This record gives sequence, structure tokens and C-alpha cells, in this order.
Amino acid sequence: MLFKQMTVIGVGLIGGSLALAAKRKGLVQTVVGYGNKRGDLHKAASMGAVDRFFLTLPKAIEGADLIVLATPIGAFEHITKAFAPYLKPGAIVTDVGSVKGELVSKIESLLSGGTPPAGRASFVGGHPMAGSEKSGIQSAFPTLFDKALAILTPTSKTDKKAVEKVSALWEGVGAEVVKIDPIKHDQVMAVVSHLPHLVAYSLMELFSHPRLIKSDTLSFAAGGLRDFTRIAESSPDMWRDIFRLNKTAVVEAIDLYQETLEKMKKAILAVPQKGGKPSAGNDDTLLKILNNAKTIRQKIRS
Amino acid sequence: MLFKQMTVIGVGLIGGSLALAAKRKGLVQTVVGYGNKRGDLHKAASMGAVDRFFLTLPKAIEGADLIVLATPIGAFEHITKAFAPYLKPGAIVTDVGSVKGELVSKIESLLSGGTPPAGRASFVGGHPMAGSEKSGIQSAFPTLFDKALAILTPTSKTDKKAVEKVSALWEGVGAEVVKIDPIKHDQVMAVVSHLPHLVAYSLMELFSHPRLIKSDTLSFAAGGLRDFTRIAESSPDMWRDIFRLNKTAVVEAIDLYQETLEKMKKAILAVPQKGGKPSAGNDDTLLKILNNAKTIRQKIRS
Repeated sequence: MLFKQMTVIGVGLIGGSLALAAKRKGLVQTVVGYGNKRGDLHKAASMGAVDRFFLTLPKAIEGADLIVLATPIGAFEHITKAFAPYLKPGAIVTDVGSVKGELVSKIESLLSGGTPPAGRASFVGGHPMAGSEKSGIQSAFPTLFDKALAILTPTSKTDKKAVEKVSALWEGVGAEVVKIDPIKHDQVMAVVSHLPHLVAYSLMELFSHPRLIKSDTLSFAAGGLRDFTRIAESSPDMWRDIFRLNKTAVVEAIDLYQETLEKMKKAILAVPQKGGKPSAGNDDTLLKILNNAKTIRQKIRS
Repeated sequence: MLFKQMTVIGVGLIGGSLALAAKRKGLVQTVVGYGNKRGDLHKAASMGAVDRFFLTLPKAIEGADLIVLATPIGAFEHITKAFAPYLKPGAIVTDVGSVKGELVSKIESLLSGGTPPAGRASFVGGHPMAGSEKSGIQSAFPTLFDKALAILTPTSKTDKKAVEKVSALWEGVGAEVVKIDPIKHDQVMAVVSHLPHLVAYSLMELFSHPRLIKSDTLSFAAGGLRDFTRIAESSPDMWRDIFRLNKTAVVEAIDLYQETLEKMKKAILAVPQKGGKPSAGNDDTLLKILNNAKTIRQKIRS
């Protein structure tokens, strides 16, 4: 038993799955849910994810020794402001957001700025790398974090014991915990997660290009493209917030990607279009890039 | 029974699967395999894909009323030149290549240019939209074309009866046949297939960028990126040939994609990074694009 009462703010795919997993593993005694849709909270209760739920923050926070922010990240700041005065002394606040960086400093200062005893909570930034294009409590399941990477982003201000407890929670639900700096987290995620999502969305948006919209190009878009852009079905609201809140690193990643794309276009343009045998040897740059790309692909952890 | 003898030139994933399916459905009496690796041909024979096989073209072509070009597309031209003199009068030649366009005219002229009776074969350009990042006879299976799109690209010179027979073969193995112009085929494929592959390769190649290679960014590349870039495991040789042979349309598609990417980058830059609530209303362009992209994604045939 790590926590007596965990309050999950936003009982969706991530919050709901964490609640289910933590209860199943006996890591928490009671889970309280907070949300703004009664129907979803009822669903969470009927699935056994939460023991009780509230639509008002003070009630939901009351008595909690762990608060998990699991709403869309765009709402973290104003929600934290709203519940900070009601925190139990010594409570730990953590989150599951895909962007850390400045958001971590902001929440840290919101929680340390309160008048004692309220507002003196420890904050531990977190980001479990799990999820899918599906969202909502109806998609939650207790093994979502099995073998997933759970990133924690402690700072110099973070209470070490709080980090240990949050770490134990994620390990308890099957995740592998890695700790990195919040800014580094955002730079890495911009490349390995945010850019790929942007790329998937932009491959879809391409079909709105005036040059393509008139043709029936989309009707040939079977198999490969569908697999490839599954993640373009992810929530636009959620991704708008991620792109917005991690703007600097995402734009940097797009810049690097644009350079890479331009390099590949040049390699294709440099290959003689005509000319006999497949391995003529004069189109080595393109082949080298493709071979290198395949090798990199094989290094990604499964 | 559509064909007495089908000779498959290149018994890999596509050629092998077609052979297995055509035999299972009783569409061909005999399948002869041609290839340059004895081990692969033995494997094809042991799997029941071919009844006999040869490592020399004249022997393999002898008596065939259907020849299927299923090697890497870069080899089509010189292989066709090599076997044309040995064709049985009235034979039909077809292919499974991902690029049509000029290749179709070239093979047409190679086959119509021979001295009678040899070299008077009909050519029907074909492209079954099936396959995976796997290749080789060991990955072949008879239901690969089930519900797949099989594109045929007849021209004004193409024999109508030959188109009908090739059409019947693909329908017989479970595919849905669509006929389009060879040039149009290449423009459409550049967008729906070749560009997505290029994008997958370039997302991998990005990790070779000097700014990323020193960090351990790749070690965080789990789940999403892996799914997303599965197709970057496809054969570099095959894709080098596709990019080379469909250069014009691929480069056009990259141009349109670069425009789209730039538009999305601008939309991200235009969103205020800070600022309270998630739906502040001042970042509508980005949200509109993401919503539009998601809608387009949902229109892709499953």
C-alpha cells in the first residue's frame, strides 16, 4: 500500500487505466475520481476504476495523499490553482502530461506558494509513455502501462521521498521508470512523439491541398497509409495543446525534419531516372540513406 | 482455369503469394518459377507455389501463356528484353510493379518490337496494392490479395482480351480490380504510398542528424514511433528503385507535402504558447487543421 487515497483529476484513458492498475495491484486503498462529465465518472465507477467521484474539486481533493493530474494538459494550470488551497499537508501531486518543461516550474510554484498548511504539496512531473489513438474511460484497461516507459522529471526543488513514492507507483503498475530533466524531456518528446504525430496529421492534411482535392487520390489510400496514420485519429484538442505547450522544441524538431526531407529530395533528384540495371552504382546516396534509416528503425525498442 | 502455364519471374512475397493463390483457386494449371537464387526457388517448390523452376529465362518462359514480372522493378526492362524472343505467340505478359508510367510504354514497345512469331505478346501493366515490410518467398501466403486493390493500367495499345484475362486472375485471387491510366497511377501512388514511405524513412534518418546523434533521443523512441515507421523496414533496394522510377511524381508529392508541413509549422508558431484555458479561441487555425486531418483519416478505406 503506497497511498491511502489517490484522487485522479480527469478519469480518461490514462487516469482510468492508472486507477484500475493501482487498485488491482493493491497500491492504493481508495481512488477518488474528479471530472466534469457525470456519465464518464459513473462509467469509471462501474468499471471499478474509482470508489467514489465528485464534480467539485474541493470534495475530490479532500483527504488525498496523492493527486494525479490526468486532464488535457491545457487545463493543468487553472485546475492546480483551483485545488491547491484544499490540499492535505504533505500531499503529493503528480501528472501524466506529455509536455513538462515550463509547466513543471509553473505547477511547482503554484503548489509552494500557498499559505501553510494548504498549498504545501510536493510536485513530481510525470509522463507515462502509453496510450493510443483512443481516449476516454471506455478505452481504459489495467495493463496499459505494462512494460511502458514512465518518465519522471524531478527538479532541484522536488522532494526526493515524493519521487520515490511516485516511482514505486509506476513500477507497481508494470512500467519502467526513467528520470530526466523537464526541458530535456520536451526536446526528446518533440522528436520521438510530437513530430511523428505532426507528420501523421500533415500527411492527412495533404489531401486537402488544392492540387489533390479535385482528384480521387484518397480513394486509393488503403493499407500502408492507413496503418501509418493511425495516430492521426488522436484527439485534435489534446494535440493542439501539446504542440502549443511544447512549441519551441516542436518547431526545432520540424526544422531538423525539414532539413532531412530536403536532403532526401535532393538524393532522389540526383538519381538518374533512366538507365538499365538496378544497381548502377550512381545512386548511392539515396540507397545509403534508406539503408541507414532501416538500421535506425531496427534499433527502436520493441 | 484461366491459364495453362503461368511463369512467375521473381518468386518473392508478391509473386509467390500470387502463385499460391492462383493454384489454390484453380486459376492456373501449372506454375513455373524463375529466379536467380536456387534456394528461394526450392523453398517456393516446397511450399507448393511453383510446380517446377528454372534459373535460365528461355526454359522458364517456354510454353507459358501468362508471364508475371515480379522481380524488383529496376530489373523489368532488361529481363523483358532477355525473354521476349522466347515468348509463345499470343502469350500475355503482366507485372506487379509499384511504378507504371513510362515503364509500361517501354515494356509495350519491347514486346511489340520482336520479329514474329516471337515478341508478339500483349502487355497488361498491373499493381496489386498488397504486401508488407516483409519480403521474400518465406513471407508469401495465398490470401495476401484478399480484398486488396489490384490496379491495372491498360493503354490504347493494350489488347482488351488480355486485360480481361488478367483482371479475372486478380479477381479470382480475391482482389478488387480498378483500371487507371499509367501516368495517373504514378501520380496517385506518389501521394498515397511513395510519399508515406519516404516520410517513414526520413523520420528514421532524422536520428542521424548531427544535432540528435549525440543525445540518447532514440532510446526513448518506443511504441508510437515504432508502429508509425514499420514501413521504414521495407527493402531499401526496392524503394530506391521506386523513388528513382517515379521520380517526377514523387518529387511533386514531396513539394506539396513540404508546403503542408510549412503551413502546419506556421499554425503552431501562431498559437500563443502561454495563456490559460485550453480553448482560448485564438489558436483556431491549428485546431482546424488537426480536426480536418482527422476527418480525412476517417475517410480512408479500411
